[in-house]
Amino acid sequence: MQKKIGIGLLGLGTVGTGIANIIKSPKGRNPLVSSIYIARIAVRDKQKQRSIEIDSSLVTTDPFEVVKDPNVQVVVEVMGGIEPAKSLILLAIQSGKSVVTANKAVIARYGKEISEAAIKNGVYVLIEAAVGGGIPIIEPLKQSLGGNRIQKVTGIINGTTNFILSQMTKEGGNYNDVLKEAQNLGYAEADPSADVEGHDAADKIAILSGLAFGGAINREKIPTKGISKLELTDIHYADKLGFEIKLLAIAENLSSKDVSNNTSVSLALRVEPTLVPREHPLSVVNGVNNAILIEGDPIGQVMFYGPGAGAGATASAVVADILNIVGIELIKKQDNSLDPLLSGISWRDCFLANTRDIPQKNYVRLITKDTPGVIGNIGKIFGINNVSIQSIVQFDSSDSKAEIIVITHEVSKGQISDSLAKIDSLKEVTKIATHLSCL
Amino acid sequence: MQKKIGIGLLGLGTVGTGIANIIKSPKGRNPLVSSIYIARIAVRDKQKQRSIEIDSSLVTTDPFEVVKDPNVQVVVEVMGGIEPAKSLILLAIQSGKSVVTANKAVIARYGKEISEAAIKNGVYVLIEAAVGGGIPIIEPLKQSLGGNRIQKVTGIINGTTNFILSQMTKEGGNYNDVLKEAQNLGYAEADPSADVEGHDAADKIAILSGLAFGGAINREKIPTKGISKLELTDIHYADKLGFEIKLLAIAENLSSKDVSNNTSVSLALRVEPTLVPREHPLSVVNGVNNAILIEGDPIGQVMFYGPGAGAGATASAVVADILNIVGIELIKKQDNSLDPLLSGISWRDCFLANTRDIPQKNYVRLITKDTPGVIGNIGKIFGINNVSIQSIVQFDSSDSKAEIIVITHEVSKGQISDSLAKIDSLKEVTKIATHLSCL
Repeated sequence: MQKKIGIGLLGLGTVGTGIANIIKSPKGRNPLVSSIYIARIAVRDKQKQRSIEIDSSLVTTDPFEVVKDPNVQVVVEVMGGIEPAKSLILLAIQSGKSVVTANKAVIARYGKEISEAAIKNGVYVLIEAAVGGGIPIIEPLKQSLGGNRIQKVTGIINGTTNFILSQMTKEGGNYNDVLKEAQNLGYAEADPSADVEGHDAADKIAILSGLAFGGAINREKIPTKGISKLELTDIHYADKLGFEIKLLAIAENLSSKDVSNNTSVSLALRVEPTLVPREHPLSVVNGVNNAILIEGDPIGQVMFYGPGAGAGATASAVVADILNIVGIELIKKQDNSLDPLLSGISWRDCFLANTRDIPQKNYVRLITKDTPGVIGNIGKIFGINNVSIQSIVQFDSSDSKAEIIVITHEVSKGQISDSLAKIDSLKEVTKIATHLSCL
Repeated sequence: MQKKIGIGLLGLGTVGTGIANIIKSPKGRNPLVSSIYIARIAVRDKQKQRSIEIDSSLVTTDPFEVVKDPNVQVVVEVMGGIEPAKSLILLAIQSGKSVVTANKAVIARYGKEISEAAIKNGVYVLIEAAVGGGIPIIEPLKQSLGGNRIQKVTGIINGTTNFILSQMTKEGGNYNDVLKEAQNLGYAEADPSADVEGHDAADKIAILSGLAFGGAINREKIPTKGISKLELTDIHYADKLGFEIKLLAIAENLSSKDVSNNTSVSLALRVEPTLVPREHPLSVVNGVNNAILIEGDPIGQVMFYGPGAGAGATASAVVADILNIVGIELIKKQDNSLDPLLSGISWRDCFLANTRDIPQKNYVRLITKDTPGVIGNIGKIFGINNVSIQSIVQFDSSDSKAEIIVITHEVSKGQISDSLAKIDSLKEVTKIATHLSCL
């Protein structure tokens, strides 16, 4: 293994702490995690109590010092805000250091300038965490869908508004009450305007659009409408007509039918509350979850779904970007070396557990005689074998025979099959008709 | 741009043709597509009529000739079957050529041997198309989730069985009838056993498990149960209890709570029909679609959804792998060069269309006086402006006032706002209460 690669962490809030937690606990993760270490950290307040143990000699309140530190090879910017984040990113690039950032506001506005500087200086600026939290979407758009002509990107990419809309739909609460609930739960900020007015989603769709269609657009010109004026009445009517209302961010190539012009395309971008038919895959995305639907030729439709925010999810995306850079660095340093991430090298021994030890919930259908006490006898056998029952329902049948459906809690495959063998031998049980597992 | 990179295509069936179609139509795709060309093609039958024009001098019936051809730098294996595919893959590797393959059967059984040979020879074997058709799942597992401790992978990864189960659930048809329907639609093979008995899903979960947990397992030992014995009765009971039955392939790290042992893990793998609660994200995956749910620390849950098969989707995955290899080759060849895929370089000019030109469906809620003819007058104005109406519904209201909901077909934002301005000036229209777009 190479000399370890030093990370300069700008910001030690919840996301920064999440990143440090991953780097400091490499066991059970890709071995490449062991090849990075935190070389320097910039914080706003050195005195602040933190949930993580950090060597205080690494900590400074001057983020520029972190970027300039010769031990720092990759700069990770998770402080947020436009400045000084933008200047720090540009300084890192000019210093020949790759950057990983979760800063959607900076990338949506200055992505072109930053990307051009990065290319000029031969470094990467990776931004997986800027859109969709932990959901892999930037990387798939760049790498896994590269052969496609992308036609449309449709995203639920703001968790706060999706939570509010889900609650209004489910509980029938009005906007202001549900916003307060979201604030109490920590899903909405004290000043919620960046989320509820759609600006956060507009930042993110600007970024996705740039990657999907191959060029930046003017972020400030994206037509943007939030949810703060949405009335419960319309959610009700939409429901009656078979729709859910979601805050969608959409980027669409209006020139996609004419591929002869390869050098410029006309795009329709917008953020607005939209009725989504209930059979559409985005309609089932509820709560603080995010989802992004990509349509392209020849892929058809693919959707990426998951947690759109949160320290762990965002940290997962940031660390993935760091590992990507480390993987590429290895190629450059060693002759004929492979990117260990891309080559998918094995790194530990994996064994199949004994099938009897696999834990699962179970669905069992029994055909029994319709005699009193049969449920009791079945329950007794499950009890003896420590199989805890979630529900047991008798369905009526003809001819003095009954069908009993048992759903168990999670037990081992061994426990359930031992129990079923005993139940099968009960005289009032005609047969075990079906045994399936349950999620 | 570098000299073009030659692709050797093994197989020119539907997937091979899909790949050739992408490579031969680079406009509107990532410019890296222009840097590859098809150097040689192996087919079984040279005389066969094909939907694609191919220079006959490139075609041979001897696949080994393709692998050995000095113009071929990357070998793309889409012929299927164990042999000669496996030998061809190994020969390519030994010749120092990277391989892209969709061959799940070979990778599930010989992945370890192939991967070790690839690393020894400094080449890549990329397999995005082997699992989940066009859905990016291999690449995200390897690269975007690399910082996580993966706990569980749960997949609906066989489109044939998912189609059959969806139809049984929706239409109430029994297994044999629905299987016949699937065969008529081309979703099931004449001999459907590899799909319906779960073997195809077992191949795929073996591959996902290897990447998620960092080591290969013995493919032949995966407990595998198909859907051919599934009774409609159980689908009915499951439905009553709030479940859908899906053929799930699961790989789970049973040692995930104990991370102190980093060198070996015990895995529970299985393929079996499973009851999925209706609120679970996998329960809504219907028809021939696939979806893979990944659970890890700290990501939580992410899901990847899309077409699990089909020429276009599979070709998309294969071409993505080719581009990945080409991107990496560029780094090696040029000093200080960046992988153009990873750096997300802009490659064309993107402009925002005039907002009035954005096409959309619309939802409009009008408050009107409850007088006869109001719907007629509204309809007339939409007609004059060429706005086609999908539905118009009057909801009863009190006080001689009515609420009318209009859903339009797709029109431009300009057309709809012109129409609404005119409707707003009708004397029987009190106000346009809401105007939202619809998917």
